[in-house]
Amino acid sequence: MALIVQKYGGTSVADCARIEHVADKVCAARRAGHDLVIVVSAMSGETDRLLGLGKNLAPRPSLREMDVLLATGEQVTIALTAIAIEQRGIKARSFTGAQVKILTDGAHGKARIEAIDEEQLRAALAANCIPVVAGFQGVDDVGDITTLGRGGSDTTAVALAAALKAGECQIYTDVEGVYTTDPRMVPEARRLERITFEEMLELASLGSKVLQIRAVEFAGKYNVPLRVLSTFKEGAGTLITYEDTAVEAPIVSGIAFNRDEAEITLLGVPDEPGTAAHILGPVSEANIVVDMIVQNVARGGRLDFTFTLHRNDCAQAMEILEAHRARIGAGSVVGNERVVKISLVGVGMRSHSGVATRMFQTLAREGIGIRLVATSEIKISVVVDEKHLEAGVRALHEAFKLHAAPQQDCLPQTARKQA
Amino acid sequence: MALIVQKYGGTSVADCARIEHVADKVCAARRAGHDLVIVVSAMSGETDRLLGLGKNLAPRPSLREMDVLLATGEQVTIALTAIAIEQRGIKARSFTGAQVKILTDGAHGKARIEAIDEEQLRAALAANCIPVVAGFQGVDDVGDITTLGRGGSDTTAVALAAALKAGECQIYTDVEGVYTTDPRMVPEARRLERITFEEMLELASLGSKVLQIRAVEFAGKYNVPLRVLSTFKEGAGTLITYEDTAVEAPIVSGIAFNRDEAEITLLGVPDEPGTAAHILGPVSEANIVVDMIVQNVARGGRLDFTFTLHRNDCAQAMEILEAHRARIGAGSVVGNERVVKISLVGVGMRSHSGVATRMFQTLAREGIGIRLVATSEIKISVVVDEKHLEAGVRALHEAFKLHAAPQQDCLPQTARKQA
Repeated sequence: MALIVQKYGGTSVADCARIEHVADKVCAARRAGHDLVIVVSAMSGETDRLLGLGKNLAPRPSLREMDVLLATGEQVTIALTAIAIEQRGIKARSFTGAQVKILTDGAHGKARIEAIDEEQLRAALAANCIPVVAGFQGVDDVGDITTLGRGGSDTTAVALAAALKAGECQIYTDVEGVYTTDPRMVPEARRLERITFEEMLELASLGSKVLQIRAVEFAGKYNVPLRVLSTFKEGAGTLITYEDTAVEAPIVSGIAFNRDEAEITLLGVPDEPGTAAHILGPVSEANIVVDMIVQNVARGGRLDFTFTLHRNDCAQAMEILEAHRARIGAGSVVGNERVVKISLVGVGMRSHSGVATRMFQTLAREGIGIRLVATSEIKISVVVDEKHLEAGVRALHEAFKLHAAPQQDCLPQTARKQA
Repeated sequence: MALIVQKYGGTSVADCARIEHVADKVCAARRAGHDLVIVVSAMSGETDRLLGLGKNLAPRPSLREMDVLLATGEQVTIALTAIAIEQRGIKARSFTGAQVKILTDGAHGKARIEAIDEEQLRAALAANCIPVVAGFQGVDDVGDITTLGRGGSDTTAVALAAALKAGECQIYTDVEGVYTTDPRMVPEARRLERITFEEMLELASLGSKVLQIRAVEFAGKYNVPLRVLSTFKEGAGTLITYEDTAVEAPIVSGIAFNRDEAEITLLGVPDEPGTAAHILGPVSEANIVVDMIVQNVARGGRLDFTFTLHRNDCAQAMEILEAHRARIGAGSVVGNERVVKISLVGVGMRSHSGVATRMFQTLAREGIGIRLVATSEIKISVVVDEKHLEAGVRALHEAFKLHAAPQQDCLPQTARKQA
């Protein structure tokens, strides 16, 4: 039977009743014959509670000590989950990150996994015992506790699955899988049976916050089949794998959007080497993350330079750029905090022209003006006024027929386009 | 400057404000030139909260997993305390029991310390850094987390002080020291400047719940000067050391009492070898702890056998003994749950007769009947009806002049007796 790594997030283990439900699911899978390794997060709310305690004592608490503090959240859950499994007559054994051991670098709060020692987990499995491992945490080479940063439990699960060469890594969460877009906005949104790592990466980074992006990268790198599914509802979820050549990929798999965008334009910047660095250097020094960057062809030695960023950072970035405006030689700095980003994602785009055209036509028909465009191999993103968000996403979902399941996965694409 | 181990209990670190107060005290001691190692307990209430979670999932949760669960309580406090100390400009570094490492046997829930590795703590001290160590926990030889049982943080502090050859181990708590008796009962009760390990052991086991008894034993064994003092009020507390031959010990140092006693008498038991074992065997098999045991001289081949125990265990012990009565050959079994124990403790008793006499006279004058008597070298205990508890303790406190400080510690005892 296959070895499966199952990861249960914070809402899945939020209280004793939910931990019992998780234990029921784990025991059912075990009785179905699977070998299992379980990874759990802290009970939901616990990490924030602990963060609050630390911040209460120091505005900038030591990162080393914050990791010691936060790691207790998952340690509580591994013990409780192991207790609940054992109560159901199946052997279980909890492991902290240090006990496994999950070796990381020493970057407290955002550590990266460097190696996983499988020996303890293999021994537990050999003893017919289900290892219950604390997600999100590890230990560095001097024995200090580290954490992987928010959502790091997904990364732990994928890394364990890769190290143990598991057949599948199942991420249990409070959604039923990956959808063509947010079902709260488009009720017709459809759960995807499968999606590629690349598409998932684009969807995750664009705001479909189902899986931590590092976990998807990790799964792609080590080719670990990843499945997202619901703790609370039965269902097959969404399987994330490499593109299956036997199955034609749909042109557009999903529509992501991000409400928290802002755009800043510098007008009349001199068209000289180093201009972009002059503009973005002071912004990134202030730890502000820039997203899209658009620069048009210069006219008369001058050009307009636009970038997008998180709305919360807009005011600070504007101040910084005003202070540097004379040095940069910009005519003026214009900010707009009332914009959003909509992105089409799909590996099928690679081999299809016309996706951008259909996207622009659809938006035009709705009377939605496009402020910025950026493209990658499997993604097209546009920035539009925030008032157009819902209408835009709905129209695109309809135009690319995402509400309808692909008729048959092996049909040639022309056939599917007509469906 | 001397190395001092300071231990702060659960009420001393109950919330962020109290942890800040502890950090202030620690930093003041550091600035006064002392080298320090800090030991902390879980925030008060936390251990019970965690116990509740575990018991909620299984009536008899795995002891290994309960230790994983409970150990998070102290881990939270070491991180918070280290953060608060660092915020005051002094370097600190938290250590779990496993990180130190405090090696214990594998008896989960009541592990015993076998060895302490000083290397990490010495390195931290050499780096001008205050180690903040999790009390109550250790790690066994296979890397499993263990706990020392309730109150185990005191033991951790004393064990660290012994290993590091500290000048003093200071136990900070919510009382100002060891008193001649409970000040809530006798307002004239006086804080003792010093007391011997032996006296402290007798007082602790008799119900003056200031220090964990194992910690006192440990401190006595390794001759670690132990000081009990208040986190919340300034003061020198009570120093617990070996009897100082230069200082005459008072005859009676303190009066302990225990409200939760019950007594059981088996009447007309055959006076044969093995009778006591027949009686107490089934009781101890039920994990019931027996305290005083009194057996009078037999008359006509029969004797009465009495023992005391915790009141909560009385009904169960009665049932057990009734079931075994025929085999034991007892005439009847009589229980009394409305008794209390009062004990005089003092190393000075060793060299003084007449203490028992004065005790009995005092109680008689108050009209208090004595049900049982037991004595040791430095202790006399009597069991009386519970209604007499307060009057008895007050009269004895007065009779032995415990409210008055010894006039001068070097006076010969005859002089003090007249004081």
